Amino acid sequence: MKTLDLRSDTVTQPTNEMRQAMANAIVGDDVYGDDPTVIELETQAAARLGKEAALFVPSGTFGNQLAILTHCQRGDEVIVGDDSHIVWHEAGAAAVIGGVQLRTLESDQGRLNPQAIKAKIRHGIDIHEPKTGLICLENAHSNGRVIPLQNMQDIWAIAQAQQVPVHLDGARVFNAATHLGVNAKEITQYCDTVMCCLSKGLAAPVGSILAGPADFIARARKLRKMLGGGLRQVGVLAAPGLIALNTMTMRLGEDHAHAQQLALALSQMDGIDIDLASVQINMVWFRFRHEIDVAALMSAFAAAHIKVNPPENGWMRLVTHWQIESTDLVRISAVLRQFAG
Amino acid sequence: MKTLDLRSDTVTQPTNEMRQAMANAIVGDDVYGDDPTVIELETQAAARLGKEAALFVPSGTFGNQLAILTHCQRGDEVIVGDDSHIVWHEAGAAAVIGGVQLRTLESDQGRLNPQAIKAKIRHGIDIHEPKTGLICLENAHSNGRVIPLQNMQDIWAIAQAQQVPVHLDGARVFNAATHLGVNAKEITQYCDTVMCCLSKGLAAPVGSILAGPADFIARARKLRKMLGGGLRQVGVLAAPGLIALNTMTMRLGEDHAHAQQLALALSQMDGIDIDLASVQINMVWFRFRHEIDVAALMSAFAAAHIKVNPPENGWMRLVTHWQIESTDLVRISAVLRQFAG
Amino acid sequence: MKTLDLRSDTVTQPTNEMRQAMANAIVGDDVYGDDPTVIELETQAAARLGKEAALFVPSGTFGNQLAILTHCQRGDEVIVGDDSHIVWHEAGAAAVIGGVQLRTLESDQGRLNPQAIKAKIRHGIDIHEPKTGLICLENAHSNGRVIPLQNMQDIWAIAQAQQVPVHLDGARVFNAATHLGVNAKEITQYCDTVMCCLSKGLAAPVGSILAGPADFIARARKLRKMLGGGLRQVGVLAAPGLIALNTMTMRLGEDHAHAQQLALALSQMDGIDIDLASVQINMVWFRFRHEIDVAALMSAFAAAHIKVNPPENGWMRLVTHWQIESTDLVRISAVLRQFAG
Amino acid sequence: MKTLDLRSDTVTQPTNEMRQAMANAIVGDDVYGDDPTVIELETQAAARLGKEAALFVPSGTFGNQLAILTHCQRGDEVIVGDDSHIVWHEAGAAAVIGGVQLRTLESDQGRLNPQAIKAKIRHGIDIHEPKTGLICLENAHSNGRVIPLQNMQDIWAIAQAQQVPVHLDGARVFNAATHLGVNAKEITQYCDTVMCCLSKGLAAPVGSILAGPADFIARARKLRKMLGGGLRQVGVLAAPGLIALNTMTMRLGEDHAHAQQLALALSQMDGIDIDLASVQINMVWFRFRHEIDVAALMSAFAAAHIKVNPPENGWMRLVTHWQIESTDLVRISAVLRQFAG
Repeated sequence: MKTLDLRSDTVTQPTNEMRQAMANAIVGDDVYGDDPTVIELETQAAARLGKEAALFVPSGTFGNQLAILTHCQRGDEVIVGDDSHIVWHEAGAAAVIGGVQLRTLESDQGRLNPQAIKAKIRHGIDIHEPKTGLICLENAHSNGRVIPLQNMQDIWAIAQAQQVPVHLDGARVFNAATHLGVNAKEITQYCDTVMCCLSKGLAAPVGSILAGPADFIARARKLRKMLGGGLRQVGVLAAPGLIALNTMTMRLGEDHAHAQQLALALSQMDGIDIDLASVQINMVWFRFRHEIDVAALMSAFAAAHIKVNPPENGWMRLVTHWQIESTDLVRISAVLRQFAG
Repeated sequence: MKTLDLRSDTVTQPTNEMRQAMANAIVGDDVYGDDPTVIELETQAAARLGKEAALFVPSGTFGNQLAILTHCQRGDEVIVGDDSHIVWHEAGAAAVIGGVQLRTLESDQGRLNPQAIKAKIRHGIDIHEPKTGLICLENAHSNGRVIPLQNMQDIWAIAQAQQVPVHLDGARVFNAATHLGVNAKEITQYCDTVMCCLSKGLAAPVGSILAGPADFIARARKLRKMLGGGLRQVGVLAAPGLIALNTMTMRLGEDHAHAQQLALALSQMDGIDIDLASVQINMVWFRFRHEIDVAALMSAFAAAHIKVNPPENGWMRLVTHWQIESTDLVRISAVLRQFAG
Repeated sequence: MKTLDLRSDTVTQPTNEMRQAMANAIVGDDVYGDDPTVIELETQAAARLGKEAALFVPSGTFGNQLAILTHCQRGDEVIVGDDSHIVWHEAGAAAVIGGVQLRTLESDQGRLNPQAIKAKIRHGIDIHEPKTGLICLENAHSNGRVIPLQNMQDIWAIAQAQQVPVHLDGARVFNAATHLGVNAKEITQYCDTVMCCLSKGLAAPVGSILAGPADFIARARKLRKMLGGGLRQVGVLAAPGLIALNTMTMRLGEDHAHAQQLALALSQMDGIDIDLASVQINMVWFRFRHEIDVAALMSAFAAAHIKVNPPENGWMRLVTHWQIESTDLVRISAVLRQFAG
Repeated sequence: MKTLDLRSDTVTQPTNEMRQAMANAIVGDDVYGDDPTVIELETQAAARLGKEAALFVPSGTFGNQLAILTHCQRGDEVIVGDDSHIVWHEAGAAAVIGGVQLRTLESDQGRLNPQAIKAKIRHGIDIHEPKTGLICLENAHSNGRVIPLQNMQDIWAIAQAQQVPVHLDGARVFNAATHLGVNAKEITQYCDTVMCCLSKGLAAPVGSILAGPADFIARARKLRKMLGGGLRQVGVLAAPGLIALNTMTMRLGEDHAHAQQLALALSQMDGIDIDLASVQINMVWFRFRHEIDVAALMSAFAAAHIKVNPPENGWMRLVTHWQIESTDLVRISAVLRQFAG
């Protein structure tokens, strides 16, 4: 029986087309600027994201941290949602690498209040004050929610007026674009720089993109070398990255539909608490209304050849991706129904 | 006419007794551990704050940042109120010197919610997570409020249970103790380390104390050298510091009474908005109910030989200290009455 | 005509076998520890390098900097050759990421004097002193020389006696082993940790290995995540990495022979100054005895479809690798003979 | 019997005039720019050092590290003598605070080779290279030697040509000026910024000066706050500092003469190895030609009420200062003669 892995979309295997692209990639030494496939990917990614230039980076964390390092002087302040990936899942890197001071704002499920941001912005004029060097947003948020364009536009207007740059952690920006029914660049028009992942739902094995103004990317290129991200024949990763960018972005709607289909099934089980409105991309969050035997649940999933993460603070997350097909969803629901009644 | 300076208690001049103490101090090279006056101050300060050991440091910011550096590894997370001095007025130092990631919590006028703190604590077990290295509190808060002992005790219980150290920015801890009617060590029992200032309301010209466990202070002593705070015949500052600690702490109640007297006078002016309950130490915060001519107000104060800071976001702060006597208060009120009706 | 690229061994294209390995690699999410090919590579690399454990990292700079960060506390001192890659070509990373203080020693063509190292070691006992946190060696050196085992053993003995760890920048450690006629682990027995590159002469497109004690590698794994080096289906890079480790290491002798053959040809030209003893791995360094027209030289190489870097301070470096065959060498010599007489 | 303390000139007690100056100083809150005595000291110090502006800092280490932080971006390279105070005795601060990479040069007893400096300067053009952000010199060197003006001028010419700033650790620059028979500004004309100590031989209890261009000092003033060096009524230290600057600088020749007198006496003892040419300021370095009983030596000094540091690697250092009079020297020689024959 085919194993289903719903722990995350980071588990996606490269497609066969990607595997062939790796095998056939025309490559060169990218530190010398000699890799045509990387140049092609960076060019196309910049265009798709509506930015002057783009840079291949090894991971999403790498891209976010490189953005912070490039935007900010040491000691600058970065306004960021308390529940963002940068705060939660990047191991304190912003302080170690970037030497920046985080101002962590409570969010409304990932959405930051523009006026709250405005109230935190500082210009470092007083001798006691750091300067706000950057505002970081995240869309789609790693909690599965998509931030509305209006919210981004409102924050952008404040940032522009105050001359503070905005970086978007767009690890799943194409999921957000799919949900909103817009091109990615309609989202990224409201930020100076954006990081997006080619792995995760787009299924490339490794790699992310940092895009922004040409002079920013030139400075980031040098700092990428300092951080150990100057790679050699990395066209072997850019080649599947191009497929991720061009082909896989087109099919994310399927993953979202599967998530909604799964969510709908769960919503019909009495014992499960789920907010259908929260299912905006490829993530389904829910919890059991009653105490369940977690060990038994995990065993039942394992017996059904399904990999899931155990509940965290009561909540479970299931993530769909290209290797989860519509017909697989029944098998998942079946396990949950045993516990949910 | 005697000039009155109500901008801050940082403007306090040393007393004549302090000046004589400086002139007569028995001093030595404190980097060699040879300054008996410094040793005496550190010993007495440790005792007063209920800690094993104490260290003289040049300023409050220095003491707070040294505490963060000594408690934390780079990349650790520090939970701290968003409106605290460490966040607001230390110029981003925690990121530059300490290399720590701030988790800034919204506060209720300086008071942090113990459950909110608990929800943020992390142990760095997951590969993505930084570890919470420190919780920072502030009492009295630089907004003039005193944090109740119960709040500190509740946070301390959580911190102890989770094995996270607590540092208290006690720049004005003796003001807090005076307000609460307790010894300072009844406050500092709820923290591992505390910084308190000998300048500000205690009127020493320069200097603060960092107190805590003996092994912590030994490590801090070395890091103080690295930060350029290893000083030589610094007994000339410890001597007035001893007077600050022993004599000036006893008279803070007068400053608080003066603040209340002034606040009461203001509360009787129709045009002034003031919360008498907010006057807990030596700070009076108020605002005009109507638009006023700030330039005219500042001129009127200057004409009356009174120094004040202009309103910030509409709010004015007046700070009492040993050089503001009860009889001076009328002169201050008189100026304000011209504008407040 | 086939283009010859002698600028560096970083320009090596992956072999066809590597391309097939990428296409066929069994992969998983390596952040979850699910990638069997990565585990296989790390296991085999640890064994080859005589260490308990190993970790895949994206680049040599990444591996060196991760080693420094994992070995050292901020403010520690690192003893390192002034002409080493860490000093010359890692863009100041040791200060930004690791927060360490370099002690740069003059070297004898890459070889450090054990007694000079001993004289620099400090234990941080005095309050003024940093602690020596690490000694960094490099073998083969990026100048093309191989450090004798005896030199490494002598330094190791001092380091062990003083309890200071040793990290080896072994970007080309298999070249060194080939030159010395030993297994790599006979070299790496004289260091605690070693970084070796799978790219460069070993021709993998991307990737390096950091190897060392199991607990060190466990800490490095977490810090790798912080630095943005936790990758997903990175088995696609580990698969060619295994070929690099197992197959390509066996054929480095050919590259060395080609370098010697080329050097011999150059030594027979009157106008060229070359030290045959300096040709120890795959690098040929030489200079013209007289002023030459660099632009004309570069044009002549280009016309012959040969890529080389222009002379730096008069010296030229030619690097052989698997894509330079014995029969190609004549074409290279022919160009040089035009200028060297 | 009066105790003699020759361990260092850092042990100097403030003079009675200084004690009176502290008691009578007109002070204000220097963070508000309100301390006239500090302003007077900074103005006079800038003039004496030939710079546009100056800043009071708590210590020499603080001043040097503030200079590095203000001159450099993180990751910049600093060229500095391997035996300098910044490398030896500042506890690794340049890496922790400044985030800079040291390039440590071997010196000829404190004197750096201008051509060696030139060879290390880098402009960060290549993607692999850090930029040389600063050259640090030290004069008088903490080894007691004075660097000749010619050497400083030669380095300055190179630095100017390459547009790299020069910082002078002039902790004892007035000793150097005294030795050279010039005004301090004839030395400091060859640097962009200089730190000089008011303590040490100049006997102020606490404090140093950082001087340089006005815009540099403005930036340093803000960074001083970040490092915790923004002090309040610090005129109490500036007042003795003015005496140090104006009076004590005039009498350093006496200390030098005493050092020479002591050195001459030692040179006449068979058992002592001393280079009279090395006695340039107030430091006498020597060693015994034969093995001596260190414990007995230290006891003999203690019995004679003389404080000295024990030999380090065989060498002893005796430091003269205003509290060592000509007539005291006999007592010191007498102890040494017992051991030196």
